[in-house]
Amino acid sequence: MTMSDVHVSGTPDPGAGGTGWRDGGSGRTNDPNGAHHRRKVYVEVRADLGGAAGRGPGPDQAVLRVPFTEVTLADSPGRGGPVPNDPIRLYDTSGPGSDPTQGLPPLRLPWITARGDVETTEGRQAVLRDDGRAAVRRAARDGAAAAGPLPFAAAGRRPRRATGPAVTQLAYARRGVVTPEMAFVAVREGVPAELVRDEIAAGRAILPANVNHPESEPMVIGSRFLVKVNANIGNSAVSSSVDEEVEKLTWATRWGADTVMDLSTGPDIHTTREWIVRNSPVPIGTVPIYQALEKVDGRPEELTWELFRDTLIEQAEQGVDYFTIHAGVLLRYVPLTASRVTGIVSRGGSIMAAWCLAHHQENFLYTHFEDMCQIMAAYDVAFSLGDGLRPGSIADANDQAQFAELETLGELTEVAWRHDVQVMIEGPGHVPLHKIAENVVLQKQVCHEAPFYTLGPLTVDVAPAYDHITSAIGAAVIGMHGTAMLCYVTPKEHLGLPNRDDVKQGMIAYKIAAHAADLAKGHPGAQAWDDALSKARFEFRWEDQFNLAMDPETARAYHDETLPAEPAKTAHFCSMCGPKFCSMRISQDVRDYAEDHGLDVGTAVTIGMKEKAAEFREAGAEVYQEASAG
Amino acid sequence: MTMSDVHVSGTPDPGAGGTGWRDGGSGRTNDPNGAHHRRKVYVEVRADLGGAAGRGPGPDQAVLRVPFTEVTLADSPGRGGPVPNDPIRLYDTSGPGSDPTQGLPPLRLPWITARGDVETTEGRQAVLRDDGRAAVRRAARDGAAAAGPLPFAAAGRRPRRATGPAVTQLAYARRGVVTPEMAFVAVREGVPAELVRDEIAAGRAILPANVNHPESEPMVIGSRFLVKVNANIGNSAVSSSVDEEVEKLTWATRWGADTVMDLSTGPDIHTTREWIVRNSPVPIGTVPIYQALEKVDGRPEELTWELFRDTLIEQAEQGVDYFTIHAGVLLRYVPLTASRVTGIVSRGGSIMAAWCLAHHQENFLYTHFEDMCQIMAAYDVAFSLGDGLRPGSIADANDQAQFAELETLGELTEVAWRHDVQVMIEGPGHVPLHKIAENVVLQKQVCHEAPFYTLGPLTVDVAPAYDHITSAIGAAVIGMHGTAMLCYVTPKEHLGLPNRDDVKQGMIAYKIAAHAADLAKGHPGAQAWDDALSKARFEFRWEDQFNLAMDPETARAYHDETLPAEPAKTAHFCSMCGPKFCSMRISQDVRDYAEDHGLDVGTAVTIGMKEKAAEFREAGAEVYQEASAG
Repeated sequence: MTMSDVHVSGTPDPGAGGTGWRDGGSGRTNDPNGAHHRRKVYVEVRADLGGAAGRGPGPDQAVLRVPFTEVTLADSPGRGGPVPNDPIRLYDTSGPGSDPTQGLPPLRLPWITARGDVETTEGRQAVLRDDGRAAVRRAARDGAAAAGPLPFAAAGRRPRRATGPAVTQLAYARRGVVTPEMAFVAVREGVPAELVRDEIAAGRAILPANVNHPESEPMVIGSRFLVKVNANIGNSAVSSSVDEEVEKLTWATRWGADTVMDLSTGPDIHTTREWIVRNSPVPIGTVPIYQALEKVDGRPEELTWELFRDTLIEQAEQGVDYFTIHAGVLLRYVPLTASRVTGIVSRGGSIMAAWCLAHHQENFLYTHFEDMCQIMAAYDVAFSLGDGLRPGSIADANDQAQFAELETLGELTEVAWRHDVQVMIEGPGHVPLHKIAENVVLQKQVCHEAPFYTLGPLTVDVAPAYDHITSAIGAAVIGMHGTAMLCYVTPKEHLGLPNRDDVKQGMIAYKIAAHAADLAKGHPGAQAWDDALSKARFEFRWEDQFNLAMDPETARAYHDETLPAEPAKTAHFCSMCGPKFCSMRISQDVRDYAEDHGLDVGTAVTIGMKEKAAEFREAGAEVYQEASAG
Repeated sequence: MTMSDVHVSGTPDPGAGGTGWRDGGSGRTNDPNGAHHRRKVYVEVRADLGGAAGRGPGPDQAVLRVPFTEVTLADSPGRGGPVPNDPIRLYDTSGPGSDPTQGLPPLRLPWITARGDVETTEGRQAVLRDDGRAAVRRAARDGAAAAGPLPFAAAGRRPRRATGPAVTQLAYARRGVVTPEMAFVAVREGVPAELVRDEIAAGRAILPANVNHPESEPMVIGSRFLVKVNANIGNSAVSSSVDEEVEKLTWATRWGADTVMDLSTGPDIHTTREWIVRNSPVPIGTVPIYQALEKVDGRPEELTWELFRDTLIEQAEQGVDYFTIHAGVLLRYVPLTASRVTGIVSRGGSIMAAWCLAHHQENFLYTHFEDMCQIMAAYDVAFSLGDGLRPGSIADANDQAQFAELETLGELTEVAWRHDVQVMIEGPGHVPLHKIAENVVLQKQVCHEAPFYTLGPLTVDVAPAYDHITSAIGAAVIGMHGTAMLCYVTPKEHLGLPNRDDVKQGMIAYKIAAHAADLAKGHPGAQAWDDALSKARFEFRWEDQFNLAMDPETARAYHDETLPAEPAKTAHFCSMCGPKFCSMRISQDVRDYAEDHGLDVGTAVTIGMKEKAAEFREAGAEVYQEASAG
């Protein structure tokens, strides 16, 4: 990659992430005069292709188009005239947008092909049972027609898999190769591509990129990079259609989801996943044991390694980028949960605990772990080692069961790495604030700095309906301590399935937590966004404030509730204040005053301010107000 | 106080905090069968009165009625039959409820009178200008009728003030006296009364209790006690009526506001405050400079000590419990803000900065600080030393201006203490996560452990419309480090004036932050609430979950969105799951299994579990699901 090759191709109104959503979105140009706007742009860079796998046909080059949300800003008022402000580019997860029935363009396909280390195969034949119990029952009722070919399979899509050794980003990184995926991520994160490669090679970061999910825009998960957020979607026995799930996916990425987990357990489980993967610009994760359990009609004791293995291959061929695997729920750990307030709250954990107890055998995910590694290395599916014994309440946080499992996850991390398979580690759960740091410290130590991926944690148990907030607090703090990705929690947690607005509320709470952590970790460039917004606020550039806001529409709507008129958006005051008051203004007076008189900060008082006081007063020492106390 | 005197007087449907609110509230009994409910109860204790001031007429006793929200719980399912659960009592700020036009009963009046150290006076004569510029203009327009007597003044209310030395809780505590106020607080907090007295005596806690606000239920602010939350209300030039402000007050205390600040700057400023104080079961704070500025038609350079002093007395006589005073904004600190991204964002700070610059004189709040102490000691008004130079953006956090002012606040703390006046210190503002701890450490050190009272802090600048969340994150963390009271932030921060729902959203976000901090600090008894709710969750006692929730109505509504029918609230599953799955259930199986076989945690695996596996399987190793990943 040559950074001098960088140039920007802007799309004036791309409807970023707006597939099917009619309420504006990040791509909307808000200012009819074009003075300042928020839109999607692509930064283009060239990257080597052929050498990527270290043994391809040659150094062909590809143009990488790396997406950003660009906010252009109005000028600042200056005493000598307007002063221009540089545009701000924000990380953009919304994808190119598409017609859901067609799927997204296979962005990474040329990169994957050029490496010359995969082949297309017939693949596993999808069967009716893959779609779950409900589909089987429906077919029995409606006849064979209901069991027709699945839509994307019918379009002749054939899965790819490795012809030889691991085709994982970890394998490439260890060979010293900067793949186009890594180069893409480097531009997205504003860091050197070599840093991306080195962090992946060391196991401290993962770049989930199944060769069967070429539609994804590469992203990286690791503590040296921006803190990421995962959104869970998926239907259940009681609700949601395929369309709704694709809609939730698009909605989640529009609000910043860096990965999406499809946790479907209801009807059409295979088909739903196919649609989700084909339409997802972000990596997709799943918990394969959920589907496996559907295949045995919900009876955990009937699960077998063979059935599970078949499910892994099914999902790997569809393009799932990471699997949550509860291989650390060992038989001997299960009784450690008996005295807990809330026992086992992980669904995957409870399935495996039930299997272990029913058979009095060791968890087959543990005993077959190396078999899984071989499968996952052939597609580049990453492990997300599940914390099946995570605490489900403040009382159970950081207990023996939780940390016993963590030790096992550390052991399995090394096994996966021996097979060149990428690994991240899942974490709690419910943890009070003072016990959060211990989780990260132990995880880093025991799991050899593999990326940590935590659910919240929730810092109190007493606010159902507000667990996006109880957990955003914990998420920000655990992110500051080094968690690489946060699994969002919606207001419906513990109460019901999230709807569209719940997804948005969960996403925004978590993007706040992630950004708070980025600032605390000193991620290069993170603070530029805050500084730009605060400067716009100080200068009453209202449109710039809205465009820079995490949720421009809501910020604008709240402002307009009190002062809806268009002039109010250019006036040098706000609705808390009325036209007469504003503390921001006095600061400008102080600044002008200091500048006029050549005063240095800290010495201003000593050099004749007294004589100047009358002058300042004449100039109009008007004072303005803010809404907050004090 | 004799704890053996404690008994509970319950009110079946007191409409706790529900004055004028028709949407249920904490007092509603939810279960028609009476099996479990949420209601207000009073714990009654006897306390000495006469000796309270250390020089009163004699040891008369009063019965203190200390309010709690009591949640009674359904039985837990046990293998040998139902097992009763103890009721949970929660801290209750909602007050007795009242007709707003009458005011609340003067709960503390006998205690104040019994101390024999105050007298009623004619007091200062209220004048039209007290109600602000708008009232003056209105009177000029509508004639003298508009300037008639103020309602509560008309009712013959006469202010009280000290006849001799300070009548402050600090003065009493230093003399070793446990006042009825301290005894009340001890019951509320579940701590020894001597701890309350000693913390107040040491200056580490304050008990705001103006002798002219006998309607208040005593509460304490200090790092050894529950973290408190303040809600800001108040009208402005552009919105709100007196009625609306009383409504917001009642609404805020119903959702847990421990104190309320009236920041009115609009019309009827004196009258609004009178109504607020007369109806407030919690201490009321103000920023007197706001009213003073109204009296000089918004021209800061026309402010004088004499006018300010008159305003202090006016408000002290009305019963304001603490004053925010920006006495730390020294002339020499003002230029330190010139290079900031957001200058001075505190309204009080900017008023005083403008005054200092206009006159080139030292801040009159600083030069007249001892005069203020003498006034405030005569009514027991506490100082809330304002941070007029607090940072208004991430970029400005922890800078020279902020910490210079803090040093001065530390100096003033000692001055106030010399006069037996209670003091707390206000804090930021906008602070990134990694700079929060430094604020508390420095504040404790510089201000000699006087209680810290912080606004947020906001941990990112980029999410206007969600600043209740950006700041709840910071509030929880700064609370964990020792902040005694949090000033809430609503979703409208930076954008407009909060409406009723914004007040609720801000309150709940902050009650979550405060409780997260209480758990982290290990406040005795804080976790009992979480444990009770989690146990109810684990046992599918849905009504108990709702009644224990911070916001029962919303939790219930969210649950009912998916599964509205009444049986769903007793079923052993939830809407995420359907009837077939639940991870909670397998935990119960594990527990039963361990119990059946006399297994100790940790040794279960070794003693013949294998033989028992088939048995477990036969008993039905059914597995259930949860909504979250994994």
